[in-house]
Amino acid sequence: MQATHPYEQLLPTHTVLLDGDSVEEKREEILTYFHKTYSIYEELHTILKDDRAFYLQPEKLRHPHIFYFGHTATFYINKLVLAKILDKRINSSYESMFAIGVDEMSWDDLNEDHYDWPAVEDVRDYRRKVRKVVDHLITTLPLTLPITWDSPFWAILMCIEHEHIHFETSSVLLRQTDIDRVQPNPLFPRYSQHGQAPVNELIAVPEGEVTLGVSHQDHNMYGWDNEYGTHSAHVEAFAASKYLVSNREYLEFIEVGGYNTPEYWSEEGRAWLEYTRAQHPVFWIVSNGTYRYRALTEEMEMPWDWPVDVNYLEAKAFCNFKSRQLGVSIRLPSEDEWVHLRNISGIQDQPFWEEAPGNINLEYAASSVPVNRFRKGEFYDVIGNVWQWTETPIFGFRGFKVHYLYDDFSTPTFDNLHNIIKGGSWISTGNEANFASRYAFRRHFFQHAGFRYVQSSHKVVVENSVYEEDQAASQYCEFHYGEKYLRVENFHKKIVDLALRYTRDLPRKKALDVGCSVGRISFELAKEYESVTGLDFSARFINLAHRLQKEGKLLYTIIDEGELVGYREHTLDELGLAESAPAVTFMQGDACNLKPLYTGYDLVIAANLMDRLYAPRRFLRILHERVNPQGIVLLTSPYTWREEFTEKAEWLGGYKKDGENVTTLDSMHEILDEHFELLGNPRDVEFVIRETSRKFQHSIAEVTVWQRRK
Amino acid sequence: MQATHPYEQLLPTHTVLLDGDSVEEKREEILTYFHKTYSIYEELHTILKDDRAFYLQPEKLRHPHIFYFGHTATFYINKLVLAKILDKRINSSYESMFAIGVDEMSWDDLNEDHYDWPAVEDVRDYRRKVRKVVDHLITTLPLTLPITWDSPFWAILMCIEHEHIHFETSSVLLRQTDIDRVQPNPLFPRYSQHGQAPVNELIAVPEGEVTLGVSHQDHNMYGWDNEYGTHSAHVEAFAASKYLVSNREYLEFIEVGGYNTPEYWSEEGRAWLEYTRAQHPVFWIVSNGTYRYRALTEEMEMPWDWPVDVNYLEAKAFCNFKSRQLGVSIRLPSEDEWVHLRNISGIQDQPFWEEAPGNINLEYAASSVPVNRFRKGEFYDVIGNVWQWTETPIFGFRGFKVHYLYDDFSTPTFDNLHNIIKGGSWISTGNEANFASRYAFRRHFFQHAGFRYVQSSHKVVVENSVYEEDQAASQYCEFHYGEKYLRVENFHKKIVDLALRYTRDLPRKKALDVGCSVGRISFELAKEYESVTGLDFSARFINLAHRLQKEGKLLYTIIDEGELVGYREHTLDELGLAESAPAVTFMQGDACNLKPLYTGYDLVIAANLMDRLYAPRRFLRILHERVNPQGIVLLTSPYTWREEFTEKAEWLGGYKKDGENVTTLDSMHEILDEHFELLGNPRDVEFVIRETSRKFQHSIAEVTVWQRRK
Repeated sequence: MQATHPYEQLLPTHTVLLDGDSVEEKREEILTYFHKTYSIYEELHTILKDDRAFYLQPEKLRHPHIFYFGHTATFYINKLVLAKILDKRINSSYESMFAIGVDEMSWDDLNEDHYDWPAVEDVRDYRRKVRKVVDHLITTLPLTLPITWDSPFWAILMCIEHEHIHFETSSVLLRQTDIDRVQPNPLFPRYSQHGQAPVNELIAVPEGEVTLGVSHQDHNMYGWDNEYGTHSAHVEAFAASKYLVSNREYLEFIEVGGYNTPEYWSEEGRAWLEYTRAQHPVFWIVSNGTYRYRALTEEMEMPWDWPVDVNYLEAKAFCNFKSRQLGVSIRLPSEDEWVHLRNISGIQDQPFWEEAPGNINLEYAASSVPVNRFRKGEFYDVIGNVWQWTETPIFGFRGFKVHYLYDDFSTPTFDNLHNIIKGGSWISTGNEANFASRYAFRRHFFQHAGFRYVQSSHKVVVENSVYEEDQAASQYCEFHYGEKYLRVENFHKKIVDLALRYTRDLPRKKALDVGCSVGRISFELAKEYESVTGLDFSARFINLAHRLQKEGKLLYTIIDEGELVGYREHTLDELGLAESAPAVTFMQGDACNLKPLYTGYDLVIAANLMDRLYAPRRFLRILHERVNPQGIVLLTSPYTWREEFTEKAEWLGGYKKDGENVTTLDSMHEILDEHFELLGNPRDVEFVIRETSRKFQHSIAEVTVWQRRK
Repeated sequence: MQATHPYEQLLPTHTVLLDGDSVEEKREEILTYFHKTYSIYEELHTILKDDRAFYLQPEKLRHPHIFYFGHTATFYINKLVLAKILDKRINSSYESMFAIGVDEMSWDDLNEDHYDWPAVEDVRDYRRKVRKVVDHLITTLPLTLPITWDSPFWAILMCIEHEHIHFETSSVLLRQTDIDRVQPNPLFPRYSQHGQAPVNELIAVPEGEVTLGVSHQDHNMYGWDNEYGTHSAHVEAFAASKYLVSNREYLEFIEVGGYNTPEYWSEEGRAWLEYTRAQHPVFWIVSNGTYRYRALTEEMEMPWDWPVDVNYLEAKAFCNFKSRQLGVSIRLPSEDEWVHLRNISGIQDQPFWEEAPGNINLEYAASSVPVNRFRKGEFYDVIGNVWQWTETPIFGFRGFKVHYLYDDFSTPTFDNLHNIIKGGSWISTGNEANFASRYAFRRHFFQHAGFRYVQSSHKVVVENSVYEEDQAASQYCEFHYGEKYLRVENFHKKIVDLALRYTRDLPRKKALDVGCSVGRISFELAKEYESVTGLDFSARFINLAHRLQKEGKLLYTIIDEGELVGYREHTLDELGLAESAPAVTFMQGDACNLKPLYTGYDLVIAANLMDRLYAPRRFLRILHERVNPQGIVLLTSPYTWREEFTEKAEWLGGYKKDGENVTTLDSMHEILDEHFELLGNPRDVEFVIRETSRKFQHSIAEVTVWQRRK
């Protein structure tokens, strides 16, 4: 079965479920899904009037259509080669040229002079070859059910779903293309009616609990990495607008001079206004003093009752205007609130519906429809029509991990600059139309997206999902919280275990973890001590410890090879440290100049600190003033003295004095013996710091335990 | 027993044997040895006329007498503290001030303004306290026999023998002190007679074998570290002068203008002449146109038949003059030749003689005696009278190791700049008078030293004993030849074992070890391959490999802590590599631009090379031209790509290309698959590079084995 589907069979599509009873039926289903997707994408591009139109650049920061036309095809080949399903390329030059540059670029990146785009017919020919290859693979690859992350069919589905995303992306670019260069296609008919917009109103939504995230184990639909994991939240009661904001309702904002009233706009919004000089939504056209409207392939009279298409910045400015107008706090919903509202509506998920419960999946129209057309419960357009901006910057759910075939699908968006859009638009198909999907865009970006506003006095929680990329800091995160490497157990846990053995019969009120770095020892101590102070000279490290305490999780990248990174997440929960974490206070501080308030400790631990201090003697000399009588000081160090950290004159050991070797242990005795007794013999404890997946610093710390005399 | 010995009982002393039947007798013997040594040293300083004389500086590059007077006492305390035998210092200030600066210093080091030397009486008082402490320790410390390197009594003996050395050193400085500031002491009487010198002649010595070095296990005398280990040599026949060179014989050299004839002098000798403007030996005095002589405490008529005191440079210049005069090759003896001559003489070692078989151990006079006074066999002054300079720069015997209480006794002299002196002088006592002892001084240095010359056409072998101190190089020496660390076996042996498994049924003629570093893989391959080429870009590393091949041993220091180092020696013998080593050819070469001659190999190994090349692709692309059909290429690397070694554009992996991750293995396949087949799966082999005794780089190399297609 290689031919394309008959025209009328192309739509609608339904996401393939990963499970099933019959392998051969599933194979057939995937084959059909592939061909439909591939064909619809090609059909969409027939909207361009002629081949020359493929080279137009409707967005000056994005490639011309020809790139996107080639891109989805090369994506199949590139990912299937990467997945080692395919061992021969079709056209290396295309597969490089069409590979990257999907997203908006910076000013200097996108110099179209660098590109010598091929002829459309050649790309069509290439697409035909790709279709054959993928068809052959789907027909012949071993298939077992359910399909999992590691299955070759996961790669196939990834490529199909990727094309679904671009289907919508290209429709936005087409809608931005000069009206003279596009033509209608009967497969994509616009909705014919529009009229007066209904008056919007706020409807109460009761509080409730939401649980988001699908399971890595048994979710039965293809999903992008950001959908997996767990997230749950209590949603406070709020009120939400009955309708999405219509063009008419948005007009109010324009008429009060909203685009010229800076206080409605965020700083980011003002910068965007300054750059674009925008005065109205992007698909509005000013013509002879009236507003007209740009649909996919035509300009038309303004459909006032259709939802407005805006970016987040515009939606947010509207909310600020509305807040002032109503005298209450109006904003966009959070992702949690949106999910709560959708849960209440009780609508089905795309693979299971007979008919779309909204203007979505191209099941109804190739344009927006009136905001009062699709009702579910008390609300309209719970899904579909246009995407709905939320206040929530996208983040990884607990347990997030990247898929090895697409490790930069989500992680570059975990930067608090990409906000989640929910619900899908009229042209959202495949995974885009699924409940669990989570797409996010830069806040100034255009999709077929609008918004519903909510009234709530509750601030939206921004989940931090920024991965620490500073490698010095990341190495320490992994050292404290990460995996065991080279058969060496977690150092910090071992040190705390040791300390606890020596303090069994002593008070356990206050403990100090000096040089706490990213905090593991502090958190471990908090399980046994009433209060723990974690001190570090480095604000960067302390901030990570503090973030972990506050957010319960730590995200960072670690280098695997060269510049390739892996993504790591660790939580206090998983480490059994969540409950006691509040007992820790992390502070920036200088061990060589310790403030007087740090005193009265029953236990002081300085792990691998001494040989990184600028004046280690000063630190050792005041210890007896900070620890209670009979209190314990535990010191560990591999004694790697280096001039970059400690001037040679300040080294505690590793030099000759009066011709004789002085070791660090000698100097510690010299300084500490007056007030402390060394308990037992020094002992060795190994530790490993990972630099890459194949390179490690492996050290042997000497651990000494000192008890202050009574 | 604390009082000093009666005057007449002070001399002579005899070295204490380490074994014995009675612990208490041994304790008594050591106590006596200590007090005699301590007292003689103090007696020697009564030669200074008054206390002010203690502050004179007879050598402008050495400290005044007061330093040496204090030094030997503080040495006891410093070493006994270091050995943890003593836990309290007597006077920290003295024990620092008198601790270092024994040797000649450079111009800028010795600024006497920096020193505020104490009063002589205070130092005498300090010496009394030290005597008490040491006496107490000798009396009370646990003693078991035999005394070994680890015994507390070894530290005691070290301090006593140290004082014996300084006894002679101070006698040289006293002999250099202004004659008006010294006075005789009946304990140190000069020999009363002198007369006409005998005519010297050369006497044949038959060839023979010598074995030097004492055993770490069962030598029964205290020895300095450089005496231990093994060394054996075949000594070719030579002829030696019957007498040491007398003042009269040396006069000839002066009379022919020897001090003004540059061609007699080595470059070092010419530099010394230029600096000192010397015109005659240092203890000769020109007075009213005649040469007079400086003995320990008096100036006297020139004793023409006494041996001349000169440094090595003067002795060597004399030999060069003599060579020209006689028309044969005259030089100083090597250490081996000296030992051979002494073996032939059959004289006893100091602890066992009833009476000294020469003018030594202060048993005969406190000055030289005529060169024809002491005969043993056909030669005179086989030992004693004055030290005899040799051609041999001091080196460590095979198996050399430093003693932990004095790790810089010998190693700073292993620099090919310190020549061995043998036989002892009239004032050599203790270990100095022992057969096995090996002292060495800078070639321009003065002792009571002269020489015997030999005629031989055989060049003296200079045993290289310079420790490689460049830490980058040393780390690699230890990585290739050193200990196993962190439970990880030797990487290079493992790699060769692996290579041999894959080449079992293939020809084993030529192998290439590219990036051979300090050569372990090359040497291991040479056991199985007819010829092995070891190539490295670094001349420094290749030189070390080459040195190991040539000299059979490799010496280097490794960092223990801070600046403190350990000394390591490894030999091809001990590694079982000596026999096959000649099959290796080490060459400097560039793997990215390999000369055409490097071809026709049955096996090529590139261990941990790729990620350090500036153009790794170029290296991989020519491999098939260098390896025979069916030949094997074994590549290992931890893929730690770094811009400092390889520009990012040249990396084989660890980057994104067209948006997808590229690993090094991907690129290797891309380049090698045309001509090679990957045998089996890549495998991991760990390796560990030691940085300090507590810090290591621990990596996991990926090993791939490729076979060239027929």
